[in-house]
Amino acid sequence: MSRGLLIILEGPDGSGKTTQINLLEKYLKEKGHEVLKTREPGGTAISEKIREIILDNKNTEMCGMCEALLYAASRAQITSQVLKPALDQGKMVICDRFVYSSIVYQGVGRGLGQERIKYINEAAIDGLEPDLTIMLTIPYEEGLKRKYKQRELDRLENSGTDFHKKVFEGYLEISRKYDKIKVVDANRDMEEIHGDIVKLVEQLIKTQQK
Amino acid sequence: MSRGLLIILEGPDGSGKTTQINLLEKYLKEKGHEVLKTREPGGTAISEKIREIILDNKNTEMCGMCEALLYAASRAQITSQVLKPALDQGKMVICDRFVYSSIVYQGVGRGLGQERIKYINEAAIDGLEPDLTIMLTIPYEEGLKRKYKQRELDRLENSGTDFHKKVFEGYLEISRKYDKIKVVDANRDMEEIHGDIVKLVEQLIKTQQK
Repeated sequence: MSRGLLIILEGPDGSGKTTQINLLEKYLKEKGHEVLKTREPGGTAISEKIREIILDNKNTEMCGMCEALLYAASRAQITSQVLKPALDQGKMVICDRFVYSSIVYQGVGRGLGQERIKYINEAAIDGLEPDLTIMLTIPYEEGLKRKYKQRELDRLENSGTDFHKKVFEGYLEISRKYDKIKVVDANRDMEEIHGDIVKLVEQLIKTQQK
Repeated sequence: MSRGLLIILEGPDGSGKTTQINLLEKYLKEKGHEVLKTREPGGTAISEKIREIILDNKNTEMCGMCEALLYAASRAQITSQVLKPALDQGKMVICDRFVYSSIVYQGVGRGLGQERIKYINEAAIDGLEPDLTIMLTIPYEEGLKRKYKQRELDRLENSGTDFHKKVFEGYLEISRKYDKIKVVDANRDMEEIHGDIVKLVEQLIKTQQK
């Protein structure tokens, strides 16, 4: 049995990651793959407890570095307990956010520095490399508008327009910096976006089969 | 007003840190100092929530790196929210454990590597340097025996004899490695130990007044 593939969806709040992950999961299952879908922060009992602390709107006094380290702690746990075992079992793993989210939200958005956040997260994921990172791009104003319509915002989403502008610019910057990131324009019809994602995933599967 | 002093008590479980911190607090208050006593992990509302996750015996599946990052997250929060402001206000701050605990418990005890844990914690404390670190030494078997008598053990204390042996050896190693650590033999009468600690603290205060 060959190792599974780790596919990450990245992008600002409201870029439609959840919708696209569900569509991709359905597609891959129909093609006969075993699929594991998970989210960050969260995905294990311990990580979900960490998630509660991170996103709780009551925790207004949380400093940026505490936030960054909590994300990394949650990521360490999901990596060792869920992602690595699932990949070893040959599963297709689709994950909502991963290391780039921290580089952008905490490194750029909170101003903690990209390299420092990268180092901390490399310790957290202990050598695990995603096989494909797809980044959905959308103007941040549009993304936030979508979120407002869906539900009450959490502490991160409530961090103000300046923060989300920085996050948006951070995403643009890292998409130019890291060749590994594949950019997909998310300001289009749901099915069109899905089509582009399927193309990228099929390419990856072909490469792996060679 | 001059900046306050940050005094850390370190040492294995059962080395008598709590007793000695209480004695030192009383001594400093009687000398007219404003004293803040705090503990790690914990010391802020957010850090106490993180503490619960770390020490909960139910969280048996927690990986070492998750544990290390949770300690660092808790430390980042107490540093920015409590320690730095108290020191700026000229207070004497006594803290039960700090960075060396992580280097020893997670770096050595969990085998994650001292340098990696040091880097992560340097990010967490953002330039804050303790003015004095006092390490209470006690054979680990003796320390654990004391703990058993006091109360039910938490997840860390329950990590097994091998772990505590590594932690003990880790403490010995770092006490040789870092000149900043002042070692006090804790396998003696409470008052004798207190006397040694007072000498170290008085020396520090004199140095600062020069």
